[in-house]
Amino acid sequence: MSAVINCAAYSNGRRIANVKITDISKFLKQEDKFVWIGLHEPDENLLSEAQQQFGLHDLAIEDAHRAHQRPKIEVYGDSLFIVLRTVQSIPGKRELLFGETHFFLGANFLVSVRHGSTLSYGDVRSRCETTPHLLHKGASFALYAVMDAIVDQYFPVVNDLEEELERLEEDVFAQKPSREIITSIYQLKRELLEVKRAISPVMEICNRLMRFDTQLIPDETRPYFRDVFDHTVRINEMVDSTRELLTSVLEVSFSLISIAQNDVSKKFAGWAAILGVPTLVAGVYGMNFSFMPELSWHFGYPFVLGSTILVCLILYWRFKRADWL
Amino acid sequence: MSAVINCAAYSNGRRIANVKITDISKFLKQEDKFVWIGLHEPDENLLSEAQQQFGLHDLAIEDAHRAHQRPKIEVYGDSLFIVLRTVQSIPGKRELLFGETHFFLGANFLVSVRHGSTLSYGDVRSRCETTPHLLHKGASFALYAVMDAIVDQYFPVVNDLEEELERLEEDVFAQKPSREIITSIYQLKRELLEVKRAISPVMEICNRLMRFDTQLIPDETRPYFRDVFDHTVRINEMVDSTRELLTSVLEVSFSLISIAQNDVSKKFAGWAAILGVPTLVAGVYGMNFSFMPELSWHFGYPFVLGSTILVCLILYWRFKRADWL
Amino acid sequence: MSAVINCAAYSNGRRIANVKITDISKFLKQEDKFVWIGLHEPDENLLSEAQQQFGLHDLAIEDAHRAHQRPKIEVYGDSLFIVLRTVQSIPGKRELLFGETHFFLGANFLVSVRHGSTLSYGDVRSRCETTPHLLHKGASFALYAVMDAIVDQYFPVVNDLEEELERLEEDVFAQKPSREIITSIYQLKRELLEVKRAISPVMEICNRLMRFDTQLIPDETRPYFRDVFDHTVRINEMVDSTRELLTSVLEVSFSLISIAQNDVSKKFAGWAAILGVPTLVAGVYGMNFSFMPELSWHFGYPFVLGSTILVCLILYWRFKRADWL
Amino acid sequence: MSAVINCAAYSNGRRIANVKITDISKFLKQEDKFVWIGLHEPDENLLSEAQQQFGLHDLAIEDAHRAHQRPKIEVYGDSLFIVLRTVQSIPGKRELLFGETHFFLGANFLVSVRHGSTLSYGDVRSRCETTPHLLHKGASFALYAVMDAIVDQYFPVVNDLEEELERLEEDVFAQKPSREIITSIYQLKRELLEVKRAISPVMEICNRLMRFDTQLIPDETRPYFRDVFDHTVRINEMVDSTRELLTSVLEVSFSLISIAQNDVSKKFAGWAAILGVPTLVAGVYGMNFSFMPELSWHFGYPFVLGSTILVCLILYWRFKRADWL
Amino acid sequence: MSAVINCAAYSNGRRIANVKITDISKFLKQEDKFVWIGLHEPDENLLSEAQQQFGLHDLAIEDAHRAHQRPKIEVYGDSLFIVLRTVQSIPGKRELLFGETHFFLGANFLVSVRHGSTLSYGDVRSRCETTPHLLHKGASFALYAVMDAIVDQYFPVVNDLEEELERLEEDVFAQKPSREIITSIYQLKRELLEVKRAISPVMEICNRLMRFDTQLIPDETRPYFRDVFDHTVRINEMVDSTRELLTSVLEVSFSLISIAQNDVSKKFAGWAAILGVPTLVAGVYGMNFSFMPELSWHFGYPFVLGSTILVCLILYWRFKRADWL
Repeated sequence: MSAVINCAAYSNGRRIANVKITDISKFLKQEDKFVWIGLHEPDENLLSEAQQQFGLHDLAIEDAHRAHQRPKIEVYGDSLFIVLRTVQSIPGKRELLFGETHFFLGANFLVSVRHGSTLSYGDVRSRCETTPHLLHKGASFALYAVMDAIVDQYFPVVNDLEEELERLEEDVFAQKPSREIITSIYQLKRELLEVKRAISPVMEICNRLMRFDTQLIPDETRPYFRDVFDHTVRINEMVDSTRELLTSVLEVSFSLISIAQNDVSKKFAGWAAILGVPTLVAGVYGMNFSFMPELSWHFGYPFVLGSTILVCLILYWRFKRADWL
Repeated sequence: MSAVINCAAYSNGRRIANVKITDISKFLKQEDKFVWIGLHEPDENLLSEAQQQFGLHDLAIEDAHRAHQRPKIEVYGDSLFIVLRTVQSIPGKRELLFGETHFFLGANFLVSVRHGSTLSYGDVRSRCETTPHLLHKGASFALYAVMDAIVDQYFPVVNDLEEELERLEEDVFAQKPSREIITSIYQLKRELLEVKRAISPVMEICNRLMRFDTQLIPDETRPYFRDVFDHTVRINEMVDSTRELLTSVLEVSFSLISIAQNDVSKKFAGWAAILGVPTLVAGVYGMNFSFMPELSWHFGYPFVLGSTILVCLILYWRFKRADWL
Repeated sequence: MSAVINCAAYSNGRRIANVKITDISKFLKQEDKFVWIGLHEPDENLLSEAQQQFGLHDLAIEDAHRAHQRPKIEVYGDSLFIVLRTVQSIPGKRELLFGETHFFLGANFLVSVRHGSTLSYGDVRSRCETTPHLLHKGASFALYAVMDAIVDQYFPVVNDLEEELERLEEDVFAQKPSREIITSIYQLKRELLEVKRAISPVMEICNRLMRFDTQLIPDETRPYFRDVFDHTVRINEMVDSTRELLTSVLEVSFSLISIAQNDVSKKFAGWAAILGVPTLVAGVYGMNFSFMPELSWHFGYPFVLGSTILVCLILYWRFKRADWL
Repeated sequence: MSAVINCAAYSNGRRIANVKITDISKFLKQEDKFVWIGLHEPDENLLSEAQQQFGLHDLAIEDAHRAHQRPKIEVYGDSLFIVLRTVQSIPGKRELLFGETHFFLGANFLVSVRHGSTLSYGDVRSRCETTPHLLHKGASFALYAVMDAIVDQYFPVVNDLEEELERLEEDVFAQKPSREIITSIYQLKRELLEVKRAISPVMEICNRLMRFDTQLIPDETRPYFRDVFDHTVRINEMVDSTRELLTSVLEVSFSLISIAQNDVSKKFAGWAAILGVPTLVAGVYGMNFSFMPELSWHFGYPFVLGSTILVCLILYWRFKRADWL
Repeated sequence: MSAVINCAAYSNGRRIANVKITDISKFLKQEDKFVWIGLHEPDENLLSEAQQQFGLHDLAIEDAHRAHQRPKIEVYGDSLFIVLRTVQSIPGKRELLFGETHFFLGANFLVSVRHGSTLSYGDVRSRCETTPHLLHKGASFALYAVMDAIVDQYFPVVNDLEEELERLEEDVFAQKPSREIITSIYQLKRELLEVKRAISPVMEICNRLMRFDTQLIPDETRPYFRDVFDHTVRINEMVDSTRELLTSVLEVSFSLISIAQNDVSKKFAGWAAILGVPTLVAGVYGMNFSFMPELSWHFGYPFVLGSTILVCLILYWRFKRADWL
């Protein structure tokens, strides 16, 4: 049963005992104690053991067994079932790893079930244990602590995405927009959408935790969930304005492509004109008419050459002034 | 009366009898029993027989007779009328088949009426009959079972659409966007819209089934409809983000077309310049002036040829460096 | 007074008398009877006569006199004033004719006032009179019957628009997008917007008729207005998805125009290159240098001609392979 | 004190006296009378005099002194403060003049304060005085009368904008889209936005006047504000659909520009090909090879010329057929 | 402790004493007095001192210590915590400086905490002290005064942005859209988004201050917050319509780029045709056929030259008329 990462009972905010899964129900009967248990990709046996110990609903257990849920909160009688998506960015690589954590919150227990690549919540637990006057508020405070840790993971990720946007802005305005830049814009759009899908339902979840007409979240814990709510709103806003700016970057880069196209056309037209004139003149004096008086002039050649070059220079100067070259 | 696929009475979650249409009203009077009947494209006679047996409303019967309804839920006195759209994808073909199923739910009966290409719900019924402790909850549980089956049909379909999107992404970024890709993007948009129209009203339907102030859905069955609701929300979200990404793909592919256009222009301009220079030079030395000293030089020809080729090479190198060729 | 199309009193769902305008108030006093009167573009005298007979509000009468109202419902004391827009498509022509019908509904009267090109509601009245058990529900049922007829007129119109969309889709994908197609897309957009403006407020009207806290719509008639509501929602949805697809068609056609442009550029560039090479070669051998050994070779001409043609063929083959020609 | 345009007391819907500003408070104490005063760009002294006479709130007076408020309604104790924007179009010129009118409505007084280029409400007052049975409803009816006049000013303005849209549609589809048309589209967009900003808050204002839980608007006056509301909704709808169509016109004109661009490219490519062939042929026969048998044929020249022209004609015919020329 | 900018007690709207941080709690116990304290980037010690004196919540103090909060309002027991963003534009530079100010409002105290580049509120305090009849309303009036000052800072900033838009409009319509203009459009979009993010949550904050079911904001102060609300709405509207117009400018400039591209193509095609004709003719008469009768005509050369020039002139005239040149 290595899927049980940690299972302890707390009283007055202090860990009083490590508990075996099968002994949990004993502890749950004692007042002023709560049990906090962390599971990692548990198998069916373990989950049904937990179900029996905590008295959880069939449908919630079924959900907890499957990954790829969307973030949500559901009330089952006197317990809550919460699904959150976690995120990690791999240092040095442009890739986001999403995982999932499910929670069962009861009056005196918190069960967390991790799926996929999520960090252990051992650190969070340790930090909580250093502030017994807070952990003393009960299982809902433990829930807050873990949710806060999960939501805070999004900040560096979204910061990275904002920086990627700035890099793209610079690229678009400094260089000519290229295939690679456009591809990166799309890539970033996709990532932002994924983050958005993971984080935006969390606002509703926090909102409900702040307002629920339930005894599970005591009044003194609610401001903490408002804090999580506030962080979620900020992440959401960062994602939204990055998305909006990215859309503008795409539109703007589209205009810039057209302007670049225009520049190519003008440059081409200008040089074609400059090359076209001497070609034409050369053609004319390449004609084989018997009677072409200019041909027999002694300085015909340098004169024609000279004046053609002059015309070319004038054209060059005018195109330059008109910003075509 | 081959349109009656199945008609049975249940008690305590177990099938106690197959029932003739005309005997239904007898069973409906007995407490603790419910009748579950499945029809397939019934004719008017059958429907009016059912109307009499179950005491259904004229307008609901009229609706049940016509296919091409939109998904909806309507309360008629003490019974519910529900319309859902079913979907099937034909393996190996890119085509979606939509059908319809209508339900009449009463305190102790469930009538399902299938239209168009929908699978029989025989399997669902069999599965329900293997869990009498659940079917024991009554007609509303049978309704849940069929609705769940219908909604779950959307998952593979939407997965296919997501995969089609990925294929299109790859095509757009790997190859140059072509007529075929653009046409496929439009095709996918159309399909997503159809799925969206079929599934999005189902959220509202589930929502009302979860909250209805009615005795038809007992409290213990409601979490099941929340489960269906949850699946519907997920399908909707998948459709929505596929749609959003598809829109981005279209925009991006548009930028890529412009960049490709730009590339053609640059390449053309570059080669035109490289060919234009020797053409000009050749023109000049093709002039017929009597006095053109270069013409009579012994190495005039190779020298002019050589220096022209040199200029061309320099041009080539510069265009190459400027990424025009 | 030819503007009075029909004016009859009903009792128990049966027409008991044709009534003169001036005698109406007599009938209104009798219980269990209701008066149903149809007017067509009445003049001021007639309207003020009706106002007196039925006791209608000044502002409603003022509105009823003017066409070009938007669909709306208004409560004036104990009567309702409803405005609907009717639609007709002229067979064989691409044009929509919009008209208007206003209704005054009281406890025991219904006045309909038609403006512009609307069909007479004589048929509706006749059909109602064949089902006295329904018409027996009173003036509100008569209102339902006419509203239903008006809303059902939208189905063929919207079907035509959907077919027009399909025709445009085909045109866009089969041919190259042209001025004509783009113009038709805009035309269709305009028509859809007009239909949308005419039909979408009707949802709200039906909604209020279904829920109004009034005695004017008896409970047993309300499901009928839900039926009209349902039809309106379907028409709305059809219009909306046609609009959405049309927008996509416009975007897609824009991409296709760009691709077509790209094709022209490539083709031109390819042929220019193929023609440019022999032109260059010809220019070179047209130079008048005294010493150009190739010129005096016996097979110089055929050799140069031959190798130039060879280069052209190679170019042709390479452009063909790169899909430029 | 020429800023006081009109100041009169009314009783039973009839003007009983012209009142001096300083005597107003006397009249306000008498029951069944109300005072209606019209100011035009009053100075601070006049406003503070009015404040004292009517007992108005500091903040409202501060607002009334400044123009460039947005339309709004505010309750201050037992009086209302309303801001509306007026509009005028200058005949023969494409320009809109916006002004402002502020109202203070109390139980028995109405103060209107005009700013900027607005028409005097003398006409409205005269018209009201001809219908004492209506004006008898009190100050709120006077408010209705002026608001109705203000809102009705928008109809001709919006009609002009709709006509401008139609002119632009015609221009876009008949001619090629030009700089001027695009500029006009933008100009119209700007004007529509200005009208929208001026009129859309009025819906909310009317809505609140229709529903306010206050004695200031007696029940019998409320339908009149619903009438103003209705007009506002119509103006809004006209503006919205003009905006929507204008957006489509811009998109469509963009497609048409691309098609025009395409046409230019095709035409150019076609003619370049037709000119390129004889140029090439001429180049070939301008080569100076000693041995070029065709050159010495007697009919070489006319034959080559003739066949080249033939090729050109064939090319012309094929390009014509392919719709390139 | 130089972070304490100002700390004073007020009674009846007059400053009665400057207070030391550590003496605050003494004053808070006295009725009819309130303490107004201004901090600037306080360190942790100072904040925890303030926390003790005023009895503030841990989470609020934690927030007040960190800058980069989003604007928000939070109720902690019987005090409010408010975050606002301030803005300043640097004269002569196109750059916006955002700062933050946090407020703690209690029954008889107001604490303001400034972060980043914000102006001191010394002026606001002085102005308040000149109107003791207003400041007499208590701490909530002091809050209003500072909030009003903060919101009013946005007007000049948004006016600058509107002027920048007008400058861009002119540039787009007068000149050809260029890289620089497009870059400026994007820059302006970014700034508008930043302002929007800073100001739009303030509407909700004012809204809640206007309606809060709390004793902290006395009824007589609420209209003042409505005034701030009104200013915020106006700023928001200005930002929104600038954003909308900016989007249109981008779209329109995109069309103009295409038209400019079209103009270049046409001009190029026209001149290419005009140059192409004499080049072709010259090529023809440069052919070396033995028998080309025109070559030996005495006036062959001037005749050919003349008629070629004539053709060119005709072409020029036709292209000019067709608006290609």
